Amino acid sequence: MTVSELPARARVVEVGPRDGLQNQPKTLPTAVKAEFIRLLADAGVADIEATSFAHPERIPQLADAEALLDLLDPVPAVRVSAVVPNMRGLERALACGVSRVGVLTAASETFNRKNINMDVRGSIDAIRSIVAGAAEHGVSARGYISTAWVCPYEGAIDAARVAGLAEELLGIGVDEVSIGDTIGAATPQGVEATLTALLVSCPVERLAVHFHDTYGLAIANAYQALRMGVATFDSSAGGLGGCPYAPGAMGNVATEDLLYLFDRLGVETGVRLGGVRRASEYMARQLGRTLPSRVLATAAGIEPQDR
Amino acid sequence: MTVSELPARARVVEVGPRDGLQNQPKTLPTAVKAEFIRLLADAGVADIEATSFAHPERIPQLADAEALLDLLDPVPAVRVSAVVPNMRGLERALACGVSRVGVLTAASETFNRKNINMDVRGSIDAIRSIVAGAAEHGVSARGYISTAWVCPYEGAIDAARVAGLAEELLGIGVDEVSIGDTIGAATPQGVEATLTALLVSCPVERLAVHFHDTYGLAIANAYQALRMGVATFDSSAGGLGGCPYAPGAMGNVATEDLLYLFDRLGVETGVRLGGVRRASEYMARQLGRTLPSRVLATAAGIEPQDR
Repeated sequence: MTVSELPARARVVEVGPRDGLQNQPKTLPTAVKAEFIRLLADAGVADIEATSFAHPERIPQLADAEALLDLLDPVPAVRVSAVVPNMRGLERALACGVSRVGVLTAASETFNRKNINMDVRGSIDAIRSIVAGAAEHGVSARGYISTAWVCPYEGAIDAARVAGLAEELLGIGVDEVSIGDTIGAATPQGVEATLTALLVSCPVERLAVHFHDTYGLAIANAYQALRMGVATFDSSAGGLGGCPYAPGAMGNVATEDLLYLFDRLGVETGVRLGGVRRASEYMARQLGRTLPSRVLATAAGIEPQDR
Repeated sequence: MTVSELPARARVVEVGPRDGLQNQPKTLPTAVKAEFIRLLADAGVADIEATSFAHPERIPQLADAEALLDLLDPVPAVRVSAVVPNMRGLERALACGVSRVGVLTAASETFNRKNINMDVRGSIDAIRSIVAGAAEHGVSARGYISTAWVCPYEGAIDAARVAGLAEELLGIGVDEVSIGDTIGAATPQGVEATLTALLVSCPVERLAVHFHDTYGLAIANAYQALRMGVATFDSSAGGLGGCPYAPGAMGNVATEDLLYLFDRLGVETGVRLGGVRRASEYMARQLGRTLPSRVLATAAGIEPQDR
């Protein structure tokens, strides 16, 4: 067995505080969100997407973005980002001193309209303005392409369309494009096809993958991406998540499950699984429900002896 | 994207009634087990492992093996099997008219002693007697190799050891060897390594894989096996399961999750996912708990539109 084909290191982008919490029926106190982020930072997570500057009426669960960022103590090793859907959002984010923003589009017109109320072309125009405005303040941007494999409204998505969008976003100046399986319906074969198309024009170090675990395929998809050299993975602690505009979508792939995979494969992340478990256990108590992570659920956290 | 590398058809061996129920703290009424098996047969599952003829004191949950088999109506399209640990078990199984038996060994000495109270050599000798005795009555045998990747006591298992055992079992006359990741700690890379070793001497059509989903890796492992041509997969409805002699082990990979993967990849099974869900929902009610299958848990069973 050779492990030479896999990246030696992978980076986890924790999106639980934003993607995980934006769909919770319960809106949590700002202090709870801040504690969640603090626990994640303690676990060694170096990239945390903390919130979204969407209109408060659109995502009321994240309406406290300013107050939350104000509560966070800067940790030098941790990069905190926030999603910014438009120029008004960028102004709010810049006023809070964020150093990184996330910008959104989708591979499906129908989903994009439902998710951010713009057609794809409109969202690209918005991203161009946001990225330019952010750059003026030394703020970096990460692009998201939602429904990159399957759209709940339009069905299967063409890989070439995703590749074209990613190339366009990189041209606009985002430093990373996160390719999203919003409803968790991608297969490892689909991941292979879409990444093959993406890698023709996008450098692998500019690509991240963003899997949801609705049907249990997320870890298989992550492994497929890892085999193809992708080393940046979005996840949420405990598998928190879902999407209000994607019926049937469950949470992001659980950070713990991803870390377990990487650990068993000898891929370094610098993140401590036990620390992420503590963050998830805290959130499970706050939300009053069990989180879907398999590793979190495993009784007594017994680990196989060979690692 | 090419699908030519994957088998066109896969076979699911439902082990929920045996592997799934042998570890439940609650012993279910025989009629409930019979109804579970009836629902699985209705769903189109063609291979069902119904019970074990282990000593009733060893697995009290399955002490009603005779009564259960007596309750089952023969369904021509369904092959019902039972695990047989020794000659006494074979006598009991033959008296019930079973047409197929499962025989057990492990790749780890320590696990084998704890699981079936024999060293590996002793279990091979027992299997030789059982398979010969079964053959005299026209009864086929399936072999299991437990802890084929990781043993909870001994750690990582050498692939060559597993390949040697599988070859020996096939030489003894089992028609299929099920390679088991008893504690769910195999990775897709480990699956690749062990199957590569196995395929040197074992025909792929004689191999089955048996994954547990303790850490969320089962579907990734199944996909790896499928890519290598393996087309027989053990699973349990809803992900029922666990192993009393493997601390930390959770259930088998859920039949629903496996079927969803196969369906999305265009691999035919002849099994209806909705029917398996009904069997799992019935068992969840009987056990009074949520079963771990992702697909079962997905709200409203919304399926992506492209399949």
